[in-house]
Amino acid sequence: MAGKVEIRRAALRDALIQHAQTRITADGLKNLRARDLAKDAGCALGAIYNVFGDLNDLVLAVNARTLKRLGAAVAQSLADAPQDATQQLIVMSHAYHRFAAENFNTWRALFDIERPRGEAAHGWYLHEMGQLFAYIDAPLSVIFPQHTAEIRALLTKALFSSVHGIVLLGLDEGSVGVPAAHLEEMIALILGHLAT
Amino acid sequence: MAGKVEIRRAALRDALIQHAQTRITADGLKNLRARDLAKDAGCALGAIYNVFGDLNDLVLAVNARTLKRLGAAVAQSLADAPQDATQQLIVMSHAYHRFAAENFNTWRALFDIERPRGEAAHGWYLHEMGQLFAYIDAPLSVIFPQHTAEIRALLTKALFSSVHGIVLLGLDEGSVGVPAAHLEEMIALILGHLAT
Repeated sequence: MAGKVEIRRAALRDALIQHAQTRITADGLKNLRARDLAKDAGCALGAIYNVFGDLNDLVLAVNARTLKRLGAAVAQSLADAPQDATQQLIVMSHAYHRFAAENFNTWRALFDIERPRGEAAHGWYLHEMGQLFAYIDAPLSVIFPQHTAEIRALLTKALFSSVHGIVLLGLDEGSVGVPAAHLEEMIALILGHLAT
Repeated sequence: MAGKVEIRRAALRDALIQHAQTRITADGLKNLRARDLAKDAGCALGAIYNVFGDLNDLVLAVNARTLKRLGAAVAQSLADAPQDATQQLIVMSHAYHRFAAENFNTWRALFDIERPRGEAAHGWYLHEMGQLFAYIDAPLSVIFPQHTAEIRALLTKALFSSVHGIVLLGLDEGSVGVPAAHLEEMIALILGHLAT
């Protein structure tokens, strides 16, 4: 049975994740400060580090929630999608675009989190991404029955990265002049040509 | 005729760009500090702001040089490329990958520079990007003669963004488990399928 200390600790953990998510949503990851979170949660600064190893661990917990929401949004888009495999890819990509636009700062935090260069992501993170990739793999196996599972896995990640790149540069209009208004058309152009 | 003040000012401008480039190369954009640059250039902190409106303007000057080098690298790759249009796209993409890998921090600075959200890039920046896009447009007009110039312009930016996304996530191995070793294979898979 969990003691009072454990229960209080779990409650503080949840509260800190919620506050961090609210602050990242409002001000972006780079403006997240531990002292603000301590104030939000009404705890001492040091108490945060009793629950999370460092601020990055807390951000990872927020990112886990974001990935789950992203997965749900993509699954939801598939529920209403046509049977055509190419159309399914396009529908999922548009769902990815909408999720990124509506959750801009938490979505950016997925990719902007600090990590020593070359260090691999956590297992649970790759597991969540793997579920997202599985949604892409299914229509690809219809469009490209000639490919081995290995090649298809590469193509899945390449396609995800491609759509990510279009959404990223499209939502950041200043960077390369990619027109945000034509973003879904650009995605459809790439995916449509790919499947012919 | 330029007076002594103008000459000294131009020399300081060049020195500051060079020092900023060196520091961004070594430590990344987010660790760039005006006081370090003043020390490097042997000038007062305020002297920087006599030459550049703010630190961002200085970073833009570094980015202009980076874009010129990137354009030269892509042009160089085309000089040795086969006649086949798809192969030319692949060769350019690989050149983009190599440039990004070898100039990681200055390349990231092209996209990570702070800008109020929604604000467009400077004209000269879009002009440089336009030259890069022209290299992509040429083989695309061979592969897709049926497309209007307008659709081709969209496809060009979509393809650039796609390759950018693959390179970005591939060089940041921790983010989604995209295998950096298979990066060029992934690019070739996308571009190869696109052209069939």
